[in-house]
Amino acid sequence: MDYMKPFGVDLDLSKGVMKNPATHIVRQASSMRGHYADAAALERLIAAGDPVHYEVAEQPVPDAPGQMRFGISTTLPGTVGGECFMTKGHYHAVPDTAEVYVGLRGQGYLLMKTVEGECLWEEFRPGRVIYVPPFWAHRTVNTGEEPLVSFYVYPGNAGHNYGDIEKQGFPVRVLKRGGKVEFVKTRSK
Amino acid sequence: MDYMKPFGVDLDLSKGVMKNPATHIVRQASSMRGHYADAAALERLIAAGDPVHYEVAEQPVPDAPGQMRFGISTTLPGTVGGECFMTKGHYHAVPDTAEVYVGLRGQGYLLMKTVEGECLWEEFRPGRVIYVPPFWAHRTVNTGEEPLVSFYVYPGNAGHNYGDIEKQGFPVRVLKRGGKVEFVKTRSK
Repeated sequence: MDYMKPFGVDLDLSKGVMKNPATHIVRQASSMRGHYADAAALERLIAAGDPVHYEVAEQPVPDAPGQMRFGISTTLPGTVGGECFMTKGHYHAVPDTAEVYVGLRGQGYLLMKTVEGECLWEEFRPGRVIYVPPFWAHRTVNTGEEPLVSFYVYPGNAGHNYGDIEKQGFPVRVLKRGGKVEFVKTRSK
Repeated sequence: MDYMKPFGVDLDLSKGVMKNPATHIVRQASSMRGHYADAAALERLIAAGDPVHYEVAEQPVPDAPGQMRFGISTTLPGTVGGECFMTKGHYHAVPDTAEVYVGLRGQGYLLMKTVEGECLWEEFRPGRVIYVPPFWAHRTVNTGEEPLVSFYVYPGNAGHNYGDIEKQGFPVRVLKRGGKVEFVKTRSK
Protein backbone atom coordinates (compact mmCIF):
# COMPACT_ATOMS: atom_id res chain seq x y z
CA MET A 1 0.00 0.00 0.00
CA ASP A 2 1.20 3.51 -0.79
CA TYR A 3 1.02 5.51 2.45
CA MET A 4 1.09 9.26 2.90
CA LYS A 5 4.29 10.19 4.76
CA PRO A 6 4.25 11.81 8.24
CA PHE A 7 5.52 15.37 8.41
CA GLY A 8 6.17 18.16 10.91
CA VAL A 9 5.83 21.94 10.90
CA ASP A 10 7.12 24.47 13.43
CA LEU A 11 4.94 27.06 15.14
CA ASP A 12 6.10 29.85 17.39
CA LEU A 13 3.40 29.34 20.03
CA SER A 14 3.81 32.71 21.75
CA LYS A 15 4.02 34.83 18.57
CA GLY A 16 1.50 32.64 16.74
CA VAL A 17 3.56 32.15 13.59
CA MET A 18 3.85 29.08 11.34
CA LYS A 19 7.28 28.73 9.75
CA ASN A 20 7.31 28.21 5.96
CA PRO A 21 3.59 27.51 5.45
CA ALA A 22 2.73 25.86 2.12
CA THR A 23 -0.25 28.17 1.55
CA HIS A 24 -0.84 31.69 2.80
CA ILE A 25 -4.17 33.45 2.21
CA VAL A 26 -4.40 37.22 2.82
CA ARG A 27 -7.76 39.03 3.01
CA GLN A 28 -7.70 42.81 2.75
CA ALA A 29 -10.48 45.21 3.73
CA SER A 30 -11.72 45.23 0.11
CA SER A 31 -12.66 41.56 0.38
CA MET A 32 -15.01 42.37 3.30
CA ARG A 33 -17.65 44.40 1.44
CA GLY A 34 -21.15 43.53 2.68
CA HIS A 35 -19.99 42.25 6.06
CA TYR A 36 -19.95 45.47 8.14
CA ALA A 37 -23.00 47.61 8.99
CA ASP A 38 -21.17 50.84 8.06
CA ALA A 39 -20.38 50.35 4.34
CA ALA A 40 -19.14 53.94 3.97
CA ALA A 41 -16.59 53.47 6.77
CA LEU A 42 -15.29 50.34 5.03
CA GLU A 43 -14.91 52.26 1.74
CA ARG A 44 -12.92 54.97 3.53
CA LEU A 45 -10.64 52.27 4.98
CA ILE A 46 -10.17 50.73 1.52
CA ALA A 47 -9.39 54.15 0.01
CA ALA A 48 -6.89 54.83 2.81
CA GLY A 49 -4.72 51.84 1.83
CA ASP A 50 -6.90 48.72 1.97
CA PRO A 51 -5.21 47.18 5.03
CA VAL A 52 -4.99 43.47 5.71
CA HIS A 53 -7.94 42.16 7.72
CA TYR A 54 -6.86 38.60 8.31
CA GLU A 55 -4.41 35.95 7.14
CA VAL A 56 -4.43 32.16 7.10
CA ALA A 57 -1.30 29.99 6.92
CA GLU A 58 -1.95 26.35 6.19
CA GLN A 59 -0.23 23.06 5.54
CA PRO A 60 -2.59 21.32 3.10
CA VAL A 61 -3.48 17.65 3.30
CA PRO A 62 -5.74 15.57 1.02
CA ASP A 63 -9.46 16.48 1.06
CA ALA A 64 -10.54 13.15 2.57
CA PRO A 65 -12.79 12.52 5.60
CA GLY A 66 -10.10 10.90 7.79
CA GLN A 67 -7.50 13.61 7.12
CA MET A 68 -7.12 16.72 9.30
CA ARG A 69 -6.48 20.22 7.94
CA PHE A 70 -4.65 22.55 10.26
CA GLY A 71 -3.20 26.04 10.24
CA ILE A 72 -2.85 29.42 11.86
CA SER A 73 -5.48 32.18 11.56
CA THR A 74 -4.44 35.80 12.29
CA THR A 75 -7.06 38.57 12.53
CA LEU A 76 -5.64 42.07 12.83
CA PRO A 77 -6.88 44.69 15.31
CA GLY A 78 -9.06 47.58 14.15
CA THR A 79 -12.63 48.77 13.70
CA VAL A 80 -14.94 49.67 10.81
CA GLY A 81 -17.48 52.26 11.99
CA GLY A 82 -16.99 50.96 15.54
CA GLU A 83 -17.38 47.31 14.53
CA CYS A 84 -14.37 45.12 15.34
CA PHE A 85 -12.29 43.56 12.53
CA MET A 86 -13.44 40.03 11.85
CA THR A 87 -13.20 37.14 9.40
CA LYS A 88 -15.89 36.50 6.78
CA GLY A 89 -17.12 33.48 8.69
CA HIS A 90 -18.38 30.25 7.17
CA TYR A 91 -20.22 27.01 7.62
CA HIS A 92 -18.44 23.86 6.54
CA ALA A 93 -19.53 22.65 3.09
CA VAL A 94 -19.97 19.23 4.75
CA PRO A 95 -22.09 20.68 7.57
CA ASP A 96 -21.86 17.85 10.12
CA THR A 97 -18.13 18.46 10.76
CA ALA A 98 -16.61 20.12 13.83
CA GLU A 99 -13.54 22.33 14.29
CA VAL A 100 -11.11 22.85 17.16
CA TYR A 101 -9.47 26.26 17.75
CA VAL A 102 -6.70 27.09 20.20
CA GLY A 103 -6.06 30.75 21.05
CA LEU A 104 -2.32 31.54 20.88
CA ARG A 105 -2.15 35.33 21.05
CA GLY A 106 -4.47 38.32 21.47
CA GLN A 107 -8.05 38.76 22.62
CA GLY A 108 -11.40 38.35 20.95
CA TYR A 109 -14.30 36.03 20.34
CA LEU A 110 -15.38 33.18 18.15
CA LEU A 111 -18.98 33.92 17.12
CA MET A 112 -20.97 30.83 16.20
CA LYS A 113 -24.44 30.50 14.68
CA THR A 114 -26.85 27.86 13.49
CA VAL A 115 -28.90 27.99 10.29
CA GLU A 116 -31.95 28.78 12.47
CA GLY A 117 -30.15 31.88 13.80
CA GLU A 118 -29.09 30.86 17.31
CA CYS A 119 -25.88 32.79 18.02
CA LEU A 120 -23.34 32.10 20.78
CA TRP A 121 -19.73 33.11 21.39
CA GLU A 122 -16.66 31.87 23.22
CA GLU A 123 -13.79 34.06 24.31
CA PHE A 124 -10.43 33.76 22.56
CA ARG A 125 -7.40 34.14 24.79
CA PRO A 126 -4.02 32.37 24.83
CA GLY A 127 -4.56 28.70 25.74
CA ARG A 128 -8.32 28.75 25.25
CA VAL A 129 -9.54 25.73 23.26
CA ILE A 130 -12.87 26.38 21.55
CA TYR A 131 -14.95 23.52 20.22
CA VAL A 132 -17.15 24.36 17.24
CA PRO A 133 -19.62 21.45 17.04
CA PRO A 134 -20.97 20.18 13.71
CA PHE A 135 -23.42 22.55 11.92
CA TRP A 136 -22.27 25.83 13.57
CA ALA A 137 -20.99 28.65 11.34
CA HIS A 138 -18.05 30.48 12.92
CA ARG A 139 -16.36 33.87 12.65
CA THR A 140 -13.35 35.25 14.53
CA VAL A 141 -13.64 38.81 15.94
CA ASN A 142 -10.61 40.70 17.26
CA THR A 143 -11.60 42.95 20.19
CA GLY A 144 -8.04 43.61 21.36
CA GLU A 145 -5.11 45.84 20.45
CA GLU A 146 -2.81 43.21 18.93
CA PRO A 147 -3.26 40.45 16.32
CA LEU A 148 -5.64 37.67 17.39
CA VAL A 149 -3.95 34.39 16.47
CA SER A 150 -5.37 30.88 16.72
CA PHE A 151 -4.36 27.37 15.69
CA TYR A 152 -7.18 25.36 14.11
CA VAL A 153 -7.86 21.75 13.09
CA TYR A 154 -10.83 20.45 11.11
CA PRO A 155 -11.69 17.38 9.02
CA GLY A 156 -9.96 17.22 5.62
CA ASN A 157 -13.26 16.90 3.73
CA ALA A 158 -15.14 19.68 5.58
CA GLY A 159 -14.64 22.47 3.04
CA HIS A 160 -16.06 26.01 3.34
CA ASN A 161 -19.47 27.47 2.67
CA TYR A 162 -19.10 31.29 2.64
CA GLY A 163 -22.16 32.03 0.49
CA ASP A 164 -24.77 31.42 3.19
CA ILE A 165 -23.05 33.86 5.57
CA GLU A 166 -22.76 36.47 2.80
CA LYS A 167 -26.55 36.18 2.36
CA GLN A 168 -27.59 35.81 6.03
CA GLY A 169 -24.82 37.57 7.96
CA PHE A 170 -24.55 36.94 11.69
CA PRO A 171 -27.41 38.06 13.99
CA VAL A 172 -24.91 39.69 16.38
CA ARG A 173 -22.37 42.47 15.72
CA VAL A 174 -19.37 43.13 17.99
CA LEU A 175 -18.64 46.81 18.59
CA LYS A 176 -15.96 48.61 20.55
CA ARG A 177 -16.93 52.02 21.92
CA GLY A 178 -14.66 53.90 24.30
CA GLY A 179 -12.59 50.75 24.80
CA LYS A 180 -15.67 48.73 25.85
CA VAL A 181 -16.83 45.68 23.87
CA GLU A 182 -20.56 45.41 23.10
CA PHE A 183 -22.55 42.59 21.51
CA VAL A 184 -25.44 44.05 19.54
CA LYS A 185 -28.30 41.90 18.25
CA THR A 186 -29.24 42.97 14.74
CA ARG A 187 -32.33 40.77 14.52
CA SER A 188 -34.24 38.40 16.76
CA LYS A 189 -33.02 35.31 14.85
CA MET B 1 -32.85 20.43 15.01
CA ASP B 2 -31.14 19.69 18.33
CA TYR B 3 -27.56 20.99 18.05
CA MET B 4 -24.60 20.16 20.26
CA LYS B 5 -23.55 23.32 22.12
CA PRO B 6 -20.14 24.97 21.58
CA PHE B 7 -17.78 24.88 24.57
CA GLY B 8 -14.34 26.04 25.66
CA VAL B 9 -11.54 24.62 27.81
CA ASP B 10 -8.43 26.35 29.14
CA LEU B 11 -4.90 25.07 28.60
CA ASP B 12 -1.75 26.44 30.13
CA LEU B 13 0.29 26.32 26.91
CA SER B 14 3.72 26.64 28.55
CA LYS B 15 3.12 24.15 31.38
CA GLY B 16 1.01 21.88 29.17
CA VAL B 17 -1.91 21.53 31.57
CA MET B 18 -5.64 21.28 30.80
CA LYS B 19 -7.81 22.84 33.49
CA ASN B 20 -10.64 20.65 34.82
CA PRO B 21 -10.52 17.88 32.18
CA ALA B 22 -13.63 15.70 32.04
CA THR B 23 -11.57 12.49 31.80
CA HIS B 24 -8.10 11.74 33.09
CA ILE B 25 -6.36 8.46 32.27
CA VAL B 26 -3.21 7.51 34.21
CA ARG B 27 -0.94 4.65 33.08
CA GLN B 28 1.58 3.37 35.60
CA ALA B 29 4.66 1.24 34.87
CA SER B 30 2.64 -1.92 35.65
CA SER B 31 0.43 -1.28 32.61
CA MET B 32 3.51 -1.38 30.33
CA ARG B 33 4.43 -5.08 30.70
CA GLY B 34 5.51 -6.52 27.34
CA HIS B 35 6.49 -3.17 25.83
CA TYR B 36 10.13 -2.85 26.97
CA ALA B 37 13.00 -5.15 25.97
CA ASP B 38 14.24 -5.44 29.58
CA ALA B 39 11.28 -7.04 31.38
CA ALA B 40 13.28 -7.50 34.60
CA ALA B 41 14.11 -3.78 34.74
CA LEU B 42 10.40 -2.96 34.37
CA GLU B 43 9.54 -5.36 37.25
CA ARG B 44 12.13 -3.65 39.47
CA LEU B 45 10.55 -0.29 38.63
CA ILE B 46 7.08 -1.63 39.47
CA ALA B 47 8.34 -3.09 42.78
CA ALA B 48 10.00 0.24 43.62
CA GLY B 49 6.69 2.12 43.58
CA ASP B 50 5.10 1.62 40.16
CA PRO B 51 5.55 5.23 38.96
CA VAL B 52 3.27 6.95 36.51
CA HIS B 53 4.42 6.50 32.89
CA TYR B 54 1.97 8.76 31.11
CA GLU B 55 -1.32 10.59 31.55
CA VAL B 56 -4.05 11.72 29.18
CA ALA B 57 -6.52 14.53 29.95
CA GLU B 58 -9.43 14.74 27.54
CA GLN B 59 -12.66 16.58 26.89
CA PRO B 60 -14.88 13.91 25.33
CA VAL B 61 -17.15 14.53 22.36
CA PRO B 62 -19.55 12.13 20.59
CA ASP B 63 -17.91 9.21 18.71
CA ALA B 64 -19.03 10.43 15.27
CA PRO B 65 -16.94 10.90 12.12
CA GLY B 66 -17.36 14.70 11.89
CA GLN B 67 -16.52 15.30 15.57
CA MET B 68 -12.98 15.97 16.83
CA ARG B 69 -11.54 14.49 20.02
CA PHE B 70 -8.82 16.54 21.66
CA GLY B 71 -6.71 16.48 24.79
CA ILE B 72 -3.33 16.68 26.44
CA SER B 73 -0.87 13.77 26.59
CA THR B 74 1.92 13.84 29.21
CA THR B 75 4.73 11.25 29.13
CA LEU B 76 7.06 11.37 32.12
CA PRO B 77 10.86 11.24 31.88
CA GLY B 78 12.75 8.06 32.78
CA THR B 79 14.22 4.85 31.39
CA VAL B 80 13.58 1.11 31.70
CA GLY B 81 16.84 -0.79 31.17
CA GLY B 82 18.11 2.19 29.14
CA GLU B 83 14.93 2.43 27.05
CA CYS B 84 13.11 5.78 27.27
CA PHE B 85 9.66 5.99 28.87
CA MET B 86 6.97 5.82 26.19
CA THR B 87 3.26 5.35 25.61
CA LYS B 88 1.80 1.99 24.59
CA GLY B 89 1.20 3.23 21.08
CA HIS B 90 -1.77 2.39 18.92
CA TYR B 91 -3.34 2.35 15.49
CA HIS B 92 -6.75 3.92 15.15
CA ALA B 93 -9.58 1.38 15.18
CA VAL B 94 -10.83 3.14 12.03
CA PRO B 95 -7.42 2.96 10.36
CA ASP B 96 -7.85 5.59 7.62
CA THR B 97 -7.96 8.47 10.15
CA ALA B 98 -5.16 10.96 10.83
CA GLU B 99 -4.07 12.76 14.02
CA VAL B 100 -2.48 16.15 14.68
CA TYR B 101 -0.07 16.62 17.62
CA VAL B 102 1.41 19.89 18.87
CA GLY B 103 4.40 19.74 21.21
CA LEU B 104 3.90 22.07 24.21
CA ARG B 105 6.68 21.12 26.62
CA GLY B 106 9.67 18.79 26.81
CA GLN B 107 11.68 16.82 24.26
CA GLY B 108 11.17 13.50 22.54
CA TYR B 109 9.85 11.77 19.46
CA LEU B 110 6.67 10.50 17.94
CA LEU B 111 7.45 7.05 16.51
CA MET B 112 5.15 6.03 13.67
CA LYS B 113 4.83 2.68 11.89
CA THR B 114 2.79 1.04 9.18
CA VAL B 115 1.34 -2.48 9.31
CA GLU B 116 4.11 -3.54 6.90
CA GLY B 117 6.72 -2.37 9.42
CA GLU B 118 8.00 0.89 7.95
CA CYS B 119 9.01 3.03 10.93
CA LEU B 120 9.65 6.80 10.97
CA TRP B 121 9.84 9.45 13.67
CA GLU B 122 9.36 13.17 14.10
CA GLU B 123 10.89 15.23 16.86
CA PHE B 124 8.66 16.63 19.61
CA ARG B 125 9.60 20.08 20.85
CA PRO B 126 7.50 23.07 21.92
CA GLY B 127 5.60 24.39 18.89
CA ARG B 128 6.28 21.37 16.69
CA VAL B 129 3.13 20.19 14.86
CA ILE B 130 3.37 16.54 13.85
CA TYR B 131 0.98 15.10 11.28
CA VAL B 132 0.21 11.40 11.67
CA PRO B 133 -1.37 10.41 8.34
CA PRO B 134 -4.08 7.75 8.10
CA PHE B 135 -2.90 4.15 8.77
CA TRP B 136 0.20 5.00 10.85
CA ALA B 137 0.44 3.63 14.41
CA HIS B 138 2.03 6.16 16.78
CA ARG B 139 3.85 6.15 20.12
CA THR B 140 5.28 9.05 22.12
CA VAL B 141 8.80 8.62 23.55
CA ASN B 142 10.24 11.02 26.12
CA THR B 143 14.01 11.44 25.63
CA GLY B 144 14.32 14.54 27.85
CA GLU B 145 14.58 15.36 31.53
CA GLU B 146 11.12 16.87 32.03
CA PRO B 147 7.56 15.78 31.15
CA LEU B 148 6.88 15.61 27.40
CA VAL B 149 3.50 17.25 26.84
CA SER B 150 1.52 17.49 23.61
CA PHE B 151 -1.92 18.65 22.51
CA TYR B 152 -3.66 16.26 20.11
CA VAL B 153 -6.73 16.26 17.87
CA TYR B 154 -8.19 13.29 15.97
CA PRO B 155 -11.52 12.33 14.40
CA GLY B 156 -14.28 11.47 16.89
CA ASN B 157 -14.89 8.05 15.36
CA ALA B 158 -11.21 6.98 15.09
CA GLY B 159 -10.98 4.89 18.27
CA HIS B 160 -7.90 2.96 19.43
CA ASN B 161 -6.40 -0.35 18.41
CA TYR B 162 -3.79 -1.29 21.04
CA GLY B 163 -3.86 -5.04 20.44
CA ASP B 164 -1.88 -5.03 17.21
CA ILE B 165 0.98 -3.06 18.83
CA GLU B 166 0.97 -5.41 21.84
CA LYS B 167 1.46 -8.31 19.38
CA GLN B 168 3.84 -6.63 16.89
CA GLY B 169 5.63 -3.99 18.94
CA PHE B 170 7.54 -1.27 17.12
CA PRO B 171 10.57 -2.22 14.98
CA VAL B 172 12.64 0.57 16.59
CA ARG B 173 13.55 1.10 20.25
CA VAL B 174 14.71 4.46 21.63
CA LEU B 175 17.54 4.22 24.17
CA LYS B 176 19.41 6.80 26.18
CA ARG B 177 22.98 5.91 27.08
CA GLY B 178 25.30 8.43 28.72
CA GLY B 179 22.85 11.21 27.87
CA LYS B 180 22.87 10.29 24.15
CA VAL B 181 19.71 9.17 22.35
CA GLU B 182 19.99 6.10 20.10
CA PHE B 183 17.44 4.56 17.72
CA VAL B 184 17.96 0.80 17.60
CA LYS B 185 16.30 -1.37 14.95
CA THR B 186 15.04 -4.59 16.53
CA ARG B 187 14.12 -6.24 13.23
CA SER B 188 14.36 -5.48 9.54
CA LYS B 189 10.59 -4.80 9.25
